[in-house]
Amino acid sequence: MSTRSASPFGGRRVVALCGGVGGAKLALGLERTIGADLTVIVNTADDFEHLGLHVSPDIDTVVYTLGGLADMERGWGRAGESWNFMEAVGGLGGETWFRLGDRDLAMHVERTHALRQGASLTDFTATIARRLDIAAKILPMSDQRVETMVVTPEETLPFQRYFVGLQCGPVVTRLEFHGAEQASATTQVLAALRNPDLAAIILCPSNPYLSIDPILAVADIREALDRVTAPIVAVSPLIGGAAVKGPTAKIMAELGIPADSRSIARHYGFLDGLVIDETDRAEAAAIGLPVHVTSTWMRSLEDRDRLAMACLNFAADLAGCDDNRRQDA
Amino acid sequence: MSTRSASPFGGRRVVALCGGVGGAKLALGLERTIGADLTVIVNTADDFEHLGLHVSPDIDTVVYTLGGLADMERGWGRAGESWNFMEAVGGLGGETWFRLGDRDLAMHVERTHALRQGASLTDFTATIARRLDIAAKILPMSDQRVETMVVTPEETLPFQRYFVGLQCGPVVTRLEFHGAEQASATTQVLAALRNPDLAAIILCPSNPYLSIDPILAVADIREALDRVTAPIVAVSPLIGGAAVKGPTAKIMAELGIPADSRSIARHYGFLDGLVIDETDRAEAAAIGLPVHVTSTWMRSLEDRDRLAMACLNFAADLAGCDDNRRQDA
Repeated sequence: MSTRSASPFGGRRVVALCGGVGGAKLALGLERTIGADLTVIVNTADDFEHLGLHVSPDIDTVVYTLGGLADMERGWGRAGESWNFMEAVGGLGGETWFRLGDRDLAMHVERTHALRQGASLTDFTATIARRLDIAAKILPMSDQRVETMVVTPEETLPFQRYFVGLQCGPVVTRLEFHGAEQASATTQVLAALRNPDLAAIILCPSNPYLSIDPILAVADIREALDRVTAPIVAVSPLIGGAAVKGPTAKIMAELGIPADSRSIARHYGFLDGLVIDETDRAEAAAIGLPVHVTSTWMRSLEDRDRLAMACLNFAADLAGCDDNRRQDA
Repeated sequence: MSTRSASPFGGRRVVALCGGVGGAKLALGLERTIGADLTVIVNTADDFEHLGLHVSPDIDTVVYTLGGLADMERGWGRAGESWNFMEAVGGLGGETWFRLGDRDLAMHVERTHALRQGASLTDFTATIARRLDIAAKILPMSDQRVETMVVTPEETLPFQRYFVGLQCGPVVTRLEFHGAEQASATTQVLAALRNPDLAAIILCPSNPYLSIDPILAVADIREALDRVTAPIVAVSPLIGGAAVKGPTAKIMAELGIPADSRSIARHYGFLDGLVIDETDRAEAAAIGLPVHVTSTWMRSLEDRDRLAMACLNFAADLAGCDDNRRQDA
């Protein structure tokens, strides 16, 4: 909501890649710190049609969080939510496994209406963000459908069926991002990544497998990232081998990957630096990358601001090192 | 909700033609009296798409009323309704002139979803009625779009813009039912009207111009009615020259028609009998039709039952007279 900028990059652009709850917390800290200098590229592979409505869970979490409407306790959905619609759907014999709050529903109805009238998801998101006085640019990774599918030993599950319907119970053997090969990033996303004024890219502490990988699976996003000269910094979503929220560690175990920050760095493969929690300080040396150690657990608003500033300063340091290295060469 | 039948027709079928609030009150009395022997044919020319949702105001009023979910005070919508969705739509910059309650919204979302998946309005209504244990058959007049348009000296208004948006303010010079010429009644409606076991047709005290005329404007409904041998009885919506609710008298004045029961009888033209309120007893002789005088103001549930029984008995008497006349001939 802020438009002030305390960026160490002095007004240059910063891009954050982000999923839902965990990522949105850092996105909020970044927006409070650098305001309109921030562009958030958000995962849309969790999007699905429910009761005929287009639901974009990660976009909505980011919009509600940056728009000051989020339920900070629950992490998703809107504060002061009521559930009378859902109860009535049940009374009419409809599906109730995926819960849509009365206030939240306004977003899905408005979005579905706008999309059917020909607006893009990018347009609609921009309109809502403007309406909610959000300073940062919030960009869906693509306006085309990409669908995360969770492959288990028994069956292949649509993401929301796995995540909400089955509460992440089944063992994950593989994740597939249907449509990602065919999907293109939007012109807005590519412009953000190719902007010569881009100072840093920050991968928020979202689930790398479920939330960031779908963004990276869009070929022209991945290509654009490969060409970025600004430092790319990730915040590890793990603290002491566990995620603050969500199935990151469980999925890593199921995929046979040690649940530590080194695995996160290796998984991404293209990072210039990794931010890890002080709990994991001992892991720092083995990561094989510049590491910044700080508290990454974001409980308060101040935690979000502090971690955002730490990420920006770390990226600025890395950029400085890089400049130095270049000068040395 | 009842399945008992206290019909003077001993289990033969009764059809009611019905609009929204006023009509639904009598439909409830009829259903409580004859249960599953009742078929209600409902106006759908007030239906419209709002926020991308298919809203069927009269169908919903009848369904909620017969399903025990209606707000008896307000007359439309559901009891115990909340308005958080609507407030949130406003917060996102959406349209708020037509208010959809949180619980009511479940119906519109479910219906829109079902229609988009290929269900007919008739199918969807039947599914919901079954779910709500409604004994009577509730039939939309048509599965095709018919749209009431209100012609005023200045412009032609879609019905809801006139009725809700402008609160019936503009002067009505003419009413048009767009699509009625092309629309066909459903097979279910035609079967109900052509049923050899049909004992009576009752025109509920809905607005004749706005709620019953659109039903009559569907050519094959009108044709089927012209061939009906069972008595057709209407309940005048006027009491002392005014409607209990809604713009009936205002519209009659604007169309240059005296707001009395005689005008109602003349307007329909094909009635076998008219039920009028005791306030209007003095008008009875001038109506030129068999008239039953009783209290038509339905405040309590008992009023609804009593008026329903009066209509049925009146129709049974007319049928008897008719039989007598036939025997005399």
